[in-house]
Amino acid sequence: MSSKYKSLKEKVYKANMDLVKKGLVIYTFGNVSQIDRENNVIAIKPSGVDYDILKPDDIVLIDLKGNPVDTSLRSSSDTKTHLKLYNKFTDIGAVVHTHSKYATAFAQAKLSIKCLGTTHADYFYGDVPCTDIISDEMLAKDYEEETGSLIVDTFKKNNIDYHSVKACLVACHGPFTWGADAEEAVFISDVLEEIAEQNYITHTLNPAIESIKLTLMNKHYFRKHGKDAYYGQEI
Amino acid sequence: MSSKYKSLKEKVYKANMDLVKKGLVIYTFGNVSQIDRENNVIAIKPSGVDYDILKPDDIVLIDLKGNPVDTSLRSSSDTKTHLKLYNKFTDIGAVVHTHSKYATAFAQAKLSIKCLGTTHADYFYGDVPCTDIISDEMLAKDYEEETGSLIVDTFKKNNIDYHSVKACLVACHGPFTWGADAEEAVFISDVLEEIAEQNYITHTLNPAIESIKLTLMNKHYFRKHGKDAYYGQEI
Amino acid sequence: MSSKYKSLKEKVYKANMDLVKKGLVIYTFGNVSQIDRENNVIAIKPSGVDYDILKPDDIVLIDLKGNPVDTSLRSSSDTKTHLKLYNKFTDIGAVVHTHSKYATAFAQAKLSIKCLGTTHADYFYGDVPCTDIISDEMLAKDYEEETGSLIVDTFKKNNIDYHSVKACLVACHGPFTWGADAEEAVFISDVLEEIAEQNYITHTLNPAIESIKLTLMNKHYFRKHGKDAYYGQEI
Amino acid sequence: MSSKYKSLKEKVYKANMDLVKKGLVIYTFGNVSQIDRENNVIAIKPSGVDYDILKPDDIVLIDLKGNPVDTSLRSSSDTKTHLKLYNKFTDIGAVVHTHSKYATAFAQAKLSIKCLGTTHADYFYGDVPCTDIISDEMLAKDYEEETGSLIVDTFKKNNIDYHSVKACLVACHGPFTWGADAEEAVFISDVLEEIAEQNYITHTLNPAIESIKLTLMNKHYFRKHGKDAYYGQEI
Repeated sequence: MSSKYKSLKEKVYKANMDLVKKGLVIYTFGNVSQIDRENNVIAIKPSGVDYDILKPDDIVLIDLKGNPVDTSLRSSSDTKTHLKLYNKFTDIGAVVHTHSKYATAFAQAKLSIKCLGTTHADYFYGDVPCTDIISDEMLAKDYEEETGSLIVDTFKKNNIDYHSVKACLVACHGPFTWGADAEEAVFISDVLEEIAEQNYITHTLNPAIESIKLTLMNKHYFRKHGKDAYYGQEI
Repeated sequence: MSSKYKSLKEKVYKANMDLVKKGLVIYTFGNVSQIDRENNVIAIKPSGVDYDILKPDDIVLIDLKGNPVDTSLRSSSDTKTHLKLYNKFTDIGAVVHTHSKYATAFAQAKLSIKCLGTTHADYFYGDVPCTDIISDEMLAKDYEEETGSLIVDTFKKNNIDYHSVKACLVACHGPFTWGADAEEAVFISDVLEEIAEQNYITHTLNPAIESIKLTLMNKHYFRKHGKDAYYGQEI
Repeated sequence: MSSKYKSLKEKVYKANMDLVKKGLVIYTFGNVSQIDRENNVIAIKPSGVDYDILKPDDIVLIDLKGNPVDTSLRSSSDTKTHLKLYNKFTDIGAVVHTHSKYATAFAQAKLSIKCLGTTHADYFYGDVPCTDIISDEMLAKDYEEETGSLIVDTFKKNNIDYHSVKACLVACHGPFTWGADAEEAVFISDVLEEIAEQNYITHTLNPAIESIKLTLMNKHYFRKHGKDAYYGQEI
Repeated sequence: MSSKYKSLKEKVYKANMDLVKKGLVIYTFGNVSQIDRENNVIAIKPSGVDYDILKPDDIVLIDLKGNPVDTSLRSSSDTKTHLKLYNKFTDIGAVVHTHSKYATAFAQAKLSIKCLGTTHADYFYGDVPCTDIISDEMLAKDYEEETGSLIVDTFKKNNIDYHSVKACLVACHGPFTWGADAEEAVFISDVLEEIAEQNYITHTLNPAIESIKLTLMNKHYFRKHGKDAYYGQEI
């Protein structure tokens, strides 16, 4: 069976390695998964395996309940967070978690990343939210699954569309991002870190700074997204 | 006809790639153009094409109204900002736009980059201004063209000579620079980012810091520019 | 006799070189040692030898009192700090000292590194403490030995278990870390610097930030350590 | 005659290139010179020549008054600052000027670099001073020569020994360093930048921080310098 998912495993392997190349993770501080929605099979990084020795074949295949499909390695310790996101954000194709410096610092500072400029608005329609701190009740249950619920609830509570803001900061923890596939989800992680750093510098220069006005945000976001987009090449 | 502009396209291609090498852009976050003033033909980066796969032949040729000259790719989404600058700053030869970290943060903080030292004064005669936030009236018109007007108006309103300050921050957006050719405009973008970072560190160390005195600015700027310059080699 | 310790010297050589590769030291700003507890022989970097020219055979062998075992090079000027740690933290296998940027800055600011997030809690069970400033009485005695005592006393005074917090900041100086072997101690130095930088960014964004709650710290630390750990692969 | 100074030119060439490799200068933002005290001949970088195309033979030879000895290229625009230092600091062998980020920011903030830790005390015996802003009277005279005088006067006025503090920040400008030869002066520039960055981070974490106490500074400085030094290998 593993040959059937060879391409999926290779994509997830490559995306995990890209996290290292882009400087978003050191050691084992991150993980990428991608789902095959037709077969409900998810490929995800194994837990605690160094990127130096990770091979495409080490990528773990599981189903939507976390049961192993064909491998003997244990999946990422954050697996249940990924599963919750696949179950609730029903049309996303991939999830990425990192501890990238600036995005993690915003999560630690319990601050959402405000939309301070067009670099942000080009990719995220509005602030990237930060969840509440996980409650002791949630901690006493299944920690990783509850972390996924925190993200989902934050989006629901604040009426944020997960299609137009593909990232969330988990308070005291770090960023999760998603996308159509592993490549896009890694791209979003990378852009998020860039935006977080620019936001940090801006905030230090001018602590009173507020989000840009909606009209400018609309202009930039919809220049790149939706039916009236005119950025890029026609395909 | 494309052979006629082969050299122009190659220069613009190389300058776009230099933005990546110098760390001024990631992904597609920037663009360079250069004009052939004799024929009023502009070579500019195509919209949304990754630097990884960009080739010299992909560079788009347009006229001063933005009409295509010889290519089927769509030009940069910021094309009309470039055109406005070529039309109003009548002897510049190239335009660069980036989202480089520190210069963008100043633009997001709506702060001009004050002249805090001789590194700045060696290249810019005075502060690098930041525009006002684009008005909703301007947003409702042609956004990219109005962005160019914002820059031109900022220089006019503040009596800044675009020959001695070859850069402007667009509020909530990022830096634009220009020069005699694409190589110089990229150089100015790079120096601007260096100066912005030094300014940021200085500002954090001493928030009350003010611009250097005019006599020192004159000394450094005119050591390198104008008829009494004595920096560099005689040619 | 040196052939008996060839492997030990090579491990210590490699760990010293890794400090440079990871960007934790420049020039001679650091040192690594590892102990053979069976024979009470310690391999340590020679004093003031550039990493450029350091060879495995230059690594110095000494006993627990600092007496040379087989070499003519002088051991690191910080040798007695290492010895004190081996003598008091009786089951550690290696010690690392660096002047890495962010950890050193916390030491200079005389601030412990608070546990602000799960990245920290994954590796350190609680704050990484900063010692008091060394007293003039201690300075008048054996400086390097007293530096070791400062570390040991800080852990004792604050009831910190050196098995679960494998790092200490020496006030006005910089970080020391330890571990089972040189590889782990270097890993801890690297993670410490990453965490210190994230802490710095967080602190700048939100100066009022406090350590995360104990329940969350417990969850993350014991997810990776101890008998109930479920991170990584079963061996 | 040039063959006589071939080795001197090569050392100065190499030291200039090292500034680029170490990330202390971009473009032409720096210069190194070294003096042959026996013949009073100084080798110095030519003015405004890009490091990309600089060759050992381009290094300019001048005497202590700045007169050319054997070359047709114009020497660095900062030549007279170097000459002043060679004339007044009578046993230094080399001078380096950079616009390295953090040291320049301190100069722009008009702040000396306080001795906040042992990394600093290992190389500089006390604060690295920042000069006053150059007066209009001095600017009206020979600017570069007066810049040298500012440095010399700052050391005299504050009773600083240029043998134990081999660096000075020129207000609104940037750092100058010196040493026995070009290699040491470049080393000091590099250590100065590292220390300036650590100082900046420390200052941001704890703005009330003060210099370390004299007893600790003495311990570290004299561990590495003077007749009682015990750092490094006996030669």
